[in-house]
Amino acid sequence: MVVSAPSGTGKTSICREFLKLCPDIRFSVSSTTRPPRPGEKNGVDYYFISEAAFREQIKAGAFAEWAENYGYYYGTAKEIMQNILGAGCDLLLDIEPVGATALRKNYPGGVFVFVLPPSLEALKSRLNRRGEIPEVMQVRLGKAMDEIKEIVWYDYIIINQDLQDAVDCLRSIYIAEKCRRERLAEKIRPFLG
Amino acid sequence: MVVSAPSGTGKTSICREFLKLCPDIRFSVSSTTRPPRPGEKNGVDYYFISEAAFREQIKAGAFAEWAENYGYYYGTAKEIMQNILGAGCDLLLDIEPVGATALRKNYPGGVFVFVLPPSLEALKSRLNRRGEIPEVMQVRLGKAMDEIKEIVWYDYIIINQDLQDAVDCLRSIYIAEKCRRERLAEKIRPFLG
Repeated sequence: MVVSAPSGTGKTSICREFLKLCPDIRFSVSSTTRPPRPGEKNGVDYYFISEAAFREQIKAGAFAEWAENYGYYYGTAKEIMQNILGAGCDLLLDIEPVGATALRKNYPGGVFVFVLPPSLEALKSRLNRRGEIPEVMQVRLGKAMDEIKEIVWYDYIIINQDLQDAVDCLRSIYIAEKCRRERLAEKIRPFLG
Repeated sequence: MVVSAPSGTGKTSICREFLKLCPDIRFSVSSTTRPPRPGEKNGVDYYFISEAAFREQIKAGAFAEWAENYGYYYGTAKEIMQNILGAGCDLLLDIEPVGATALRKNYPGGVFVFVLPPSLEALKSRLNRRGEIPEVMQVRLGKAMDEIKEIVWYDYIIINQDLQDAVDCLRSIYIAEKCRRERLAEKIRPFLG
């Protein structure tokens, strides 16, 4: 299950709360070149690596997806995904829209969720609250609008009006997807004789 | 949203508990010729009508679906569905598999959920618990097996191992379906400019 959104939409908070409710799903820890924020732990929130190391891994084809966002790199190591999926576990990815688009091609069985702000006004005001100068804000807004154009191929959209409601939606999507008939072929077989 | 299952699988209990959690969805009250069970109320659980009245409504084309089950008739009046859907409300139907198959053709946007017992053994033991003679039990089992063959076209399957879990699955399916991108075209439009 892939959760993606423009910056400032609250997707990481939603994923964090969701993981508390559904401890069976494993979180895919991304690698990034951005410095840790207060409280973030290496190996838990991200693997914090140098730009040189990141470029090395790109060259080695180690990433299932990677993207650049405001001067920093973010990527998901193929090995981490393969280990979790290979063990039969469900996997949650919290990634950039560009990375989600890349993953979609290689994981057609994935469930893709896009988080939207409650309105365009809310998005603008969230970007404003970060205290950026108007030019920077304009760039961020333009980037967010470009990312939002990608929603046309996503499976699900969560409009993040209220954190708890959004978390409930993500949990519902997870549980409902596990009830989809196509995913239950093994369990259904004994009933079909 | 249509919930269907063989007799004795617990679908009506699941629907009843689900409606308590999600009062926004309206329940489609079916018509039936079977006598009310203790506690069942006319107009709430079913419209209890005579066989003559039922046949009259079949002739008049008043039913969106109808089915015969162990000598009694069950059907959903088109008018009831149209009133609820026309008011923009979501609609829950708790109906026989034969009726669900009929509805599917006319309501391709519907969400179809099939409830399965935890196992074939559990189904047999539930039928046994009703204290039927072996011949009757064999007929019921054969009918259930025929109905279960229909799951191949359902959207979702709930395996009713535990009532609360099954209710949570149905609620999750309902909430997740409301997050499906195709169903959010109106809300998404302002973001696409």
